[in-house]
Amino acid sequence: MKNEIKIFSPATVANVACGFDVLGFCLDGIGDEMVIRKTDKKGIHITKIEGFDLPYETELNVAGVSALAMYEAAKPDCGFEIEIYKKIKPGSGIGSSAASAVGSVFGMNALLGRPYNKTELTQFAIKGEALASKCEHADNLAPAIFGGFTLVKSVSPLKILEIPSPEDLYATIIHPQIEIKTSEARAILPKDVPLQNAITQWANFGSLIHGLHTSDYDLIQKSLHDVIVEPYRSQLIPYYKEVKKAVLQNGALGAGISGSGPSIFTLSKGFENAQKVKSAMEKVYSETDIAFEIHMARINTEGVKVL
Amino acid sequence: MKNEIKIFSPATVANVACGFDVLGFCLDGIGDEMVIRKTDKKGIHITKIEGFDLPYETELNVAGVSALAMYEAAKPDCGFEIEIYKKIKPGSGIGSSAASAVGSVFGMNALLGRPYNKTELTQFAIKGEALASKCEHADNLAPAIFGGFTLVKSVSPLKILEIPSPEDLYATIIHPQIEIKTSEARAILPKDVPLQNAITQWANFGSLIHGLHTSDYDLIQKSLHDVIVEPYRSQLIPYYKEVKKAVLQNGALGAGISGSGPSIFTLSKGFENAQKVKSAMEKVYSETDIAFEIHMARINTEGVKVL
Repeated sequence: MKNEIKIFSPATVANVACGFDVLGFCLDGIGDEMVIRKTDKKGIHITKIEGFDLPYETELNVAGVSALAMYEAAKPDCGFEIEIYKKIKPGSGIGSSAASAVGSVFGMNALLGRPYNKTELTQFAIKGEALASKCEHADNLAPAIFGGFTLVKSVSPLKILEIPSPEDLYATIIHPQIEIKTSEARAILPKDVPLQNAITQWANFGSLIHGLHTSDYDLIQKSLHDVIVEPYRSQLIPYYKEVKKAVLQNGALGAGISGSGPSIFTLSKGFENAQKVKSAMEKVYSETDIAFEIHMARINTEGVKVL
Repeated sequence: MKNEIKIFSPATVANVACGFDVLGFCLDGIGDEMVIRKTDKKGIHITKIEGFDLPYETELNVAGVSALAMYEAAKPDCGFEIEIYKKIKPGSGIGSSAASAVGSVFGMNALLGRPYNKTELTQFAIKGEALASKCEHADNLAPAIFGGFTLVKSVSPLKILEIPSPEDLYATIIHPQIEIKTSEARAILPKDVPLQNAITQWANFGSLIHGLHTSDYDLIQKSLHDVIVEPYRSQLIPYYKEVKKAVLQNGALGAGISGSGPSIFTLSKGFENAQKVKSAMEKVYSETDIAFEIHMARINTEGVKVL
C-alpha cells in the first residue's frame, strides 16, 4: 500500500435554486490539491499550506478537523501529514471549506485501504465543514465526495442520493470579490414562508429532479426557480438582477446564488451556450468597479479523486 | 367513426404526503363508468345518472361543465349525451369530481377523432373540477387522464409530468363515512409555514420523485412524510393517528390524507403487504361506530380508458 497520495478535491455548488439546503453539484477542473502522507508519528499534522493563509493548527483547520474525526474513529497505527494546495478562494461560495474537509478524509481513507464508504466519509467531513460554517451541513460535501448532482435528504441520519444529470450540462459561475458573512446570509432569511411559495418551491424541485432524470433541458429550465431564498439573499449581491437577466437572455437554463454567495451560478446546455453566458456575465461586471472571477466547468461526475 | 362510447374514469389520490398540491396517482379498478353519445341535437345533455344523486342541469354538473368547456372550444357539428354511472362516492377524497370531469371530455374527444392531447383535456376538465372544489386545480385530473403518478408542476401554464413508478406498488385506502367540508379543510391550513419545515418537505418530495424513478421502495418509505399539512388536516379525520400507526406497523411504506380527506391512503410493496395493511385499517375502524369502506388497488398506469 502506498504511503503518500495526491488528491484533487473539487469545488461545488450548493443551494441549486429550488433545491435550497439540499441539492448540490460538483464542478470539473476547479478544486484544491492535497497531499496526504502516512507517518510513524501519531496524530494529524498539517505541514504545508499554499495559496491562501489558513491555520496550521489541526483543530483550527477544516481539513484537520475532518481528518481528526476520521482518525479518532479509525484509530490507526500511524499518523498523517497533510499538505494543502488551496486553489478555491475561501468565502467564494463554491465549497472551499468542503473541498478541504473532503480532501483529507478521502486521502486518509485511500491510504488505509478504504475502510469507509462515501456516506461515512461525508459524516467525518461534516465535522470539518461545521468549523467553517458553524453548522453541520453536507450540501457541498456530498457533491464533492459523490460527484454529479446530490440530494442530501437528511443530515441526521445522513442520507445522500445521487441524481443523474444530462451529459451536456455546463456551469458558469461568477465570483464577485466581495465578502458576505455567513451570519448575515443566515440572518436575512425569514423564519416563516408563505405556504403557497413553499408549494411552488417543491413543485419546482420535484420537477427539477424529474428533469435531471430524463435529461429534459426544457424542464430543467422551467424548474430552476427559487421563490423562497433568492428574494432575500440576492439583495446581498451587487448587480445580481442584472447578471441574472443578462445570462437568461443569453441562453442560460437558469441562475441562482451559489451556496450563500457571493458567487452566482448558471447552468447551460452545451459549451457554446456556457461561453455566451460567460461573456454576458463578464460584460455586466466589467462595467462596475468590483473585481471578479469567472469559472466555467462541466458537471464533474467523479468527485474527489486521486491524481 | 363510432357514435357512442363507454368509458371507465378512474379514482385517484391527490396530495400524496410530501407532494401536497402537486402529486397524484391513479387507482386501478375503482372508478365511474360513463356513456358518451353523439347526437344531431346540438349542446351537451345529461340523460342518465345512476349511483348518486347529482344534478342533471349541464351547467351544475361537473361532467357537464367540463364537457361544455370542450364543446365551446371544438364547436363541433353535433351535440353529446352523457350517461353517468357513478361509483365513486362524492366527497370521499379519491377524486370523485375529477373522474366525472375527465370522463366526459375523454369520451367526447374520442368521438371527435382525438383532436386534443391529454394536457388539453386536463385544461377542459379543470373547469368541471372548479365547479366542485371552487378552485382550478389538476392534482386529481392529471392522474385520471395520464395514469400512474403525475406531478402538476404548474396550473397556469398547465404543465404535467408523468413520473414512473415501481411495478409492485399497491394502494390501500380507507374511507370513513364522514363529511369534511372542503372549505373547512382549506381554512385549517396556515398561511405561513416554518422555512425549516418547508425545506424538509422539499427534501422529502425530491427524494420521493427520485425513489419513484429508481424503484427504491426503501427511499419511497423514507420520503412519504408530510410535515406541513398533515399536522393540521389530520385533526379533521377521526382515528387518523391510530390508523397511521397500525398501517406502518403492518408494513405500509407510508400513509397520508387522500385529497382533503376524509379518506386515508397508504402505499405498500406487493399485494400481501397491502392485504395486511387492509386488515390493520379494518381493525382500527371496526372498533369505532363510524361506517367505512376500504379500497385496495394497484397503481393504474393507463388512466381513463374506453371500455
